[in-house]
Amino acid sequence: MFLTRLRDALTEADVVDDPQIIESYRADHAPGVPAGMPRAVVFPRSAEQVAAVLRAAVAERVPVVPRGAGSGLAGGANAVDGCVVVVMDRMDEIVRIDPLDGVAVVQPGVRNTALREAAAEHGLWYAPDPASRDFCSIGGNVATNAGGLCCVKYGVTRDSVLALQVVLADGSITRLGRRSIKGVAGYDLTGLFVGSEGTLGIITEVTVRLRPLPPPAITVVASMPGLTAAATAVQSCLTTMTPSLLELLDRRTIRAVEEWKGLGLDTSAAALLLAQTDLPGEAGEAEARRLEQTFTEHGALEVYRSETAEEAELLLGARRFAFPALERLGRVYLEDIAIPRGRLADLLAAVERIADRTGAIVGTFGHAGDGNMHPTIVAPWDAPEAGTAATAAFHAIMDAALDLGGTITGEHGVGLLKRHGLAGELDDTARRLHLQIKQTLDPYGLLNPGKALPSMP
Amino acid sequence: MFLTRLRDALTEADVVDDPQIIESYRADHAPGVPAGMPRAVVFPRSAEQVAAVLRAAVAERVPVVPRGAGSGLAGGANAVDGCVVVVMDRMDEIVRIDPLDGVAVVQPGVRNTALREAAAEHGLWYAPDPASRDFCSIGGNVATNAGGLCCVKYGVTRDSVLALQVVLADGSITRLGRRSIKGVAGYDLTGLFVGSEGTLGIITEVTVRLRPLPPPAITVVASMPGLTAAATAVQSCLTTMTPSLLELLDRRTIRAVEEWKGLGLDTSAAALLLAQTDLPGEAGEAEARRLEQTFTEHGALEVYRSETAEEAELLLGARRFAFPALERLGRVYLEDIAIPRGRLADLLAAVERIADRTGAIVGTFGHAGDGNMHPTIVAPWDAPEAGTAATAAFHAIMDAALDLGGTITGEHGVGLLKRHGLAGELDDTARRLHLQIKQTLDPYGLLNPGKALPSMP
Repeated sequence: MFLTRLRDALTEADVVDDPQIIESYRADHAPGVPAGMPRAVVFPRSAEQVAAVLRAAVAERVPVVPRGAGSGLAGGANAVDGCVVVVMDRMDEIVRIDPLDGVAVVQPGVRNTALREAAAEHGLWYAPDPASRDFCSIGGNVATNAGGLCCVKYGVTRDSVLALQVVLADGSITRLGRRSIKGVAGYDLTGLFVGSEGTLGIITEVTVRLRPLPPPAITVVASMPGLTAAATAVQSCLTTMTPSLLELLDRRTIRAVEEWKGLGLDTSAAALLLAQTDLPGEAGEAEARRLEQTFTEHGALEVYRSETAEEAELLLGARRFAFPALERLGRVYLEDIAIPRGRLADLLAAVERIADRTGAIVGTFGHAGDGNMHPTIVAPWDAPEAGTAATAAFHAIMDAALDLGGTITGEHGVGLLKRHGLAGELDDTARRLHLQIKQTLDPYGLLNPGKALPSMP
Repeated sequence: MFLTRLRDALTEADVVDDPQIIESYRADHAPGVPAGMPRAVVFPRSAEQVAAVLRAAVAERVPVVPRGAGSGLAGGANAVDGCVVVVMDRMDEIVRIDPLDGVAVVQPGVRNTALREAAAEHGLWYAPDPASRDFCSIGGNVATNAGGLCCVKYGVTRDSVLALQVVLADGSITRLGRRSIKGVAGYDLTGLFVGSEGTLGIITEVTVRLRPLPPPAITVVASMPGLTAAATAVQSCLTTMTPSLLELLDRRTIRAVEEWKGLGLDTSAAALLLAQTDLPGEAGEAEARRLEQTFTEHGALEVYRSETAEEAELLLGARRFAFPALERLGRVYLEDIAIPRGRLADLLAAVERIADRTGAIVGTFGHAGDGNMHPTIVAPWDAPEAGTAATAAFHAIMDAALDLGGTITGEHGVGLLKRHGLAGELDDTARRLHLQIKQTLDPYGLLNPGKALPSMP
């Protein structure tokens, strides 16, 4: 009956109940969280088809799990038993790029890099750049409010989203937000949907702002003698400059990258700092010099800056290889905490203490300029018992971030992975508010059940 | 009974029912919208006192109208009969400025300029700069999501707010958001409250991000031969640069300023463009040259740039005097529409047509770089019948903005003034969603009733 309704609303080929095909749509990239067995996977091609799926789901009380590219890291797209997984892959059209308005209108299945490239043809730039940009989708980016490397200067996905078309739980279709850059008519419902992880509705179109393409960046790399020196250097930069990128890798991460790629990194350093400036011309040169100088003043063992755009990109290699290099060493538990910017040294020290105490192997890297770090716990393949230490460390790091006034997730989302942590972050009233809003928009609780939200206070 | 409860919760001096004092708290600065008669005005000094006021109000079903500095332009702070006006003036402490975290924590009654000055002592900058910055409050800025002149590069109030403490309708106190720059745990309820004009709760503390103080700006001024030339020049700038300010004044506004202040403006020009760049050093010089060049290529009659920081500020005088200069000419109806950036020429032409058709006198100025313009309709004091034409023009301009894909309010808010317009901007489903959220958070409808929200579809 449910499948018949789906097949009536979509084409035959866009409704799948073959268990073998379904298998590959059960989970995203989050490790160690459960995934149920969907009864069907559908691939709608329009907002109207999404609405038909939701009407069918409500009629038969079938849970609905929206899915972008499946590259999520928190289990937000993991299936629940008996659900329909709604894959937005086939809505992948760049509807319009309007250089004069400085906006693009895209369907949710468009890949981040595809939008980036299409904008570049007009001399424009879509700023948000999650590390997964080559394979993640704009819809998924919006649903998780994805971050990236350029956030320190250009903000997160939220800061580039002007308007959304969404299908609500009851199958009604609405437009939120506007095409103008500014606007304060009504509540910021666009913002409410950004980062709501598919629990309030399904995003079927996204209007984003584009910026002028920035000038080529200059990269400055410094190897630092200690984590505290690295953290204070970061803070020193941020009180007087706004670099376009400011990343940190700790020793374990440096060594993992070096062992794998042999880039010639200084494996004796406690930390590697990578910064970029994209100011134009002489201002970029001047800012690069100030970055070098700041790192030197904080005791850098070595400072190096790129001479060409190609070299600038090459030097980022160490950062881009950080996570895959750690992944090679075992099963990984990727953290995503963020702390107030001034507490970076405290966080790095806390992570070291937690590693010592639990015996977990932790490599830390991330967006130092935003205080959004990714301590990555590695449970070696040949040490099956390491999972216990890893889990203990994972939770202890979240607690440490909260103790420092931070958050359990800076950019990956809560999904399934961090629901417990959320209880520590939101007070009772805020939790109640979340659940009331969820209940108002999704009275049967069918949209991505069990994800993203706190449990009842 | 109600007054007794208030006097029990607050000090005697912070509860006022003297009709003469109440009179000055009945309305904000919006012209032509009704204001009711409050039964009391209270001046709470803590979140707990605000909570006590709300508990008393709920117990006796008394409407509550929150009020910042009263500088609003849409009637959002206007009293309704029998309400209690909650004036946030006496919660005016800068709680903390933390240069390392790059944040400030302030009470809502702090004046925008006071925060700006306190941040500057640390070499930091609070960016949002509404024209009313010397007398408006941060709480009011947050409640209306206020804009300003620097938005074109640095965004609106929303973009600087990290966290809020709010008191909900039932008197519970909660914290929303975080101190870290990034964070995606839970729904963006901070964003939901920003711009909600006191209809969802009362803001009792605001955490904002601070940026490094930008270098001194260079101002470039150009007098343009036509509105279309001015609009296309603006667009041409924005596709390759991000100036820190980009404003436009039309001929009527230029003449009003010149007659009043005698600044030596070219009163034969159809429009005056004012731009600033705050890039450092040679990059600023280069961007100023490109602004000059762009204006010249679009037919500027004259282009001039500042040589010193003092002169840069002086040249902005024409813009700062725009509204008061028009106010001298009669009763004014200040519009606040915003359109997609590429439609500026169309909007300016539409405003001219509307002025011709209705016979209204309209001077237009505003934030051209954001497409957020303030066509200001003047009904001369000696022409009492001009009010009818003015009202017709006011509504026609909102319609024109919507026809161009824009919004009825870019930065002032809906308040009482634009509730009718809102019906044209939101679709039925979006309207329903607004009312559902309002109902969920304020089940008795006591918080700023009759403001900001659409009527039922």
